[in-house]
Amino acid sequence: MSDAHTGVKKAALLLPEEALRSYVSARLAETDGKVGSSPAGIEVEILDVSGGPPPTDRLSQFDVLITGWRTPLLPPELAHFDDRNRYLCHLTGTLRSNVPRELIASPKWIVTNWGTSISGFVSEMHLALLLGVSRRFSEIRRVMETGEGWKRELPPGTSLFGRRIGFYGYGLIGREFHKLVEPFGVKVRIFDPYASPDDIPASATRVSSLEELFRESDIISIHAGLTAETEGSIDYRLLSLLPEDGIVVNTARAGIIREEALLQAVEDTGLRFGLDVFHKEPLDPDSPLVSSPTVLCTPHSAGVVANQFEMIWATAQANLLRYASGEDLRFVVDEKLYDRMT
Amino acid sequence: MSDAHTGVKKAALLLPEEALRSYVSARLAETDGKVGSSPAGIEVEILDVSGGPPPTDRLSQFDVLITGWRTPLLPPELAHFDDRNRYLCHLTGTLRSNVPRELIASPKWIVTNWGTSISGFVSEMHLALLLGVSRRFSEIRRVMETGEGWKRELPPGTSLFGRRIGFYGYGLIGREFHKLVEPFGVKVRIFDPYASPDDIPASATRVSSLEELFRESDIISIHAGLTAETEGSIDYRLLSLLPEDGIVVNTARAGIIREEALLQAVEDTGLRFGLDVFHKEPLDPDSPLVSSPTVLCTPHSAGVVANQFEMIWATAQANLLRYASGEDLRFVVDEKLYDRMT
Repeated sequence: MSDAHTGVKKAALLLPEEALRSYVSARLAETDGKVGSSPAGIEVEILDVSGGPPPTDRLSQFDVLITGWRTPLLPPELAHFDDRNRYLCHLTGTLRSNVPRELIASPKWIVTNWGTSISGFVSEMHLALLLGVSRRFSEIRRVMETGEGWKRELPPGTSLFGRRIGFYGYGLIGREFHKLVEPFGVKVRIFDPYASPDDIPASATRVSSLEELFRESDIISIHAGLTAETEGSIDYRLLSLLPEDGIVVNTARAGIIREEALLQAVEDTGLRFGLDVFHKEPLDPDSPLVSSPTVLCTPHSAGVVANQFEMIWATAQANLLRYASGEDLRFVVDEKLYDRMT
Repeated sequence: MSDAHTGVKKAALLLPEEALRSYVSARLAETDGKVGSSPAGIEVEILDVSGGPPPTDRLSQFDVLITGWRTPLLPPELAHFDDRNRYLCHLTGTLRSNVPRELIASPKWIVTNWGTSISGFVSEMHLALLLGVSRRFSEIRRVMETGEGWKRELPPGTSLFGRRIGFYGYGLIGREFHKLVEPFGVKVRIFDPYASPDDIPASATRVSSLEELFRESDIISIHAGLTAETEGSIDYRLLSLLPEDGIVVNTARAGIIREEALLQAVEDTGLRFGLDVFHKEPLDPDSPLVSSPTVLCTPHSAGVVANQFEMIWATAQANLLRYASGEDLRFVVDEKLYDRMT
């Protein structure tokens, strides 16, 4: 309940102990003896949910509920318990197994999710792959393990500074990645028929075809979703338009590149690939993608990091702060979005 | 000579053919049939220097001389040939074997070098190593090659977003690296007793000891020079102050970390290292640094990239443009700097 004297809001964190351990790292827990550092104006209390959600009357004593991927499904009655306005801050993207639709539909509740918290991690791995494949990490590792070469005996890598990057798709992750490569002074072209003109920064050039994108780029950065339109849209002919020292990085969906075109390019040309996604996963250790000196692979783990929760919690804290000071919240989940979630 | 009608300056590029090939990439040469794209207001002509520098009277016909690491030592008489002011644009860092001291000392000549062109490449590899070791590329590669794991079966990597980075040294390369990690919202601490207060950005915290730096950082980023003061300055005790998921990246000089401390940390703790420099180079393939799943190594190649010349040429072009429009030049080499060069 709100404290009328101080304006402090009460929040309940509804996570089973095992999730608390993985979510709330030691460092966060240690900061002030509370859960993470509670945002100013919010007191966070941990409620035990290992045996199911607490009773509705207990939950209704809080202004804010904080939930995550192991939180048991909340009772739908919460939507109509009383006339108080409440905030549910959910710590993952999808929330259908934790939050009943009634709360989303209720005008008394506002519900948010982790928003772009995870886009950063994917774009970060995208950059790690791009830099690693640019600087030929696969070849370097083999040569250092065998003692067969050093420095200038190796084929030199290329630098990202000043290079032409073609973005295939410019959604949340593409835009996050763009921020990470801006300090390299890259020249950006974008192919995304669905991006609104407002999404395209003035420093970038929009192109109207994949052919134009491949013809005018040194690096192709794939951020498109997998749809009937994008599936198999990158064929060998397009790959052949890239320069000799060209690079393709894919952390989106494997099906966007035709598998035979990818394998042929790896075999025939010096084209380099950074790949987090594969047509068949796990990737066969005998695949030429694993052994090729021009390919750098990660096991579909772009979004997986140990300190994930710090970022998710930072996003949540920012929203909790906004809530405490009466500002508009970010990453609100409405009925339309809720129904589209898997 | 200057063209009085158009204000066009004449420049001579003095590189032997073999250096031209490695310096001037095909793409640059193709842009407009000239050497690179000549900056507005400057006409660049190639002079053959394979048999030594052209005679002084031929050289004195140009306003600008462009030289590089294979250019033969220019005749000192150039310094006093006539009263014209001239510009010598040198395409590497050091220039004592190409440019006589007389030209540096002469008030008629202004001489520049590549300035920060190479700092970018080193800082880029520094980031490649940091991201690669954060995301556990060495472990991933081993596991993918053997088919022993996938995604969540692997120890998760950590993300750079929001992490605390401690800079040991904040010279040209440290500052370049800082620009590259800024989009990750990192918290920066700096230990550099020689940096002036103006060098330290307001967003960073200066610390007064290595102990404080290690105690307050998740990641240690080494950018110091090797001096009597820095040699062996990182010992096992300092490394032990880092958190369990700590990371140390060194593209500077190996001797800054005590070798036995490094090897002990690799063996005893989960501390992760990204290393481009080693106490003995080439690194022995049997070294535990090569086989450790928590270490990522590159063969002292941070500054070596194939498209190096594009950046060096971009730096040169920017200076040539400034020269053509009468602006102050960057990266001027004076007598003091010249005498300090190796």
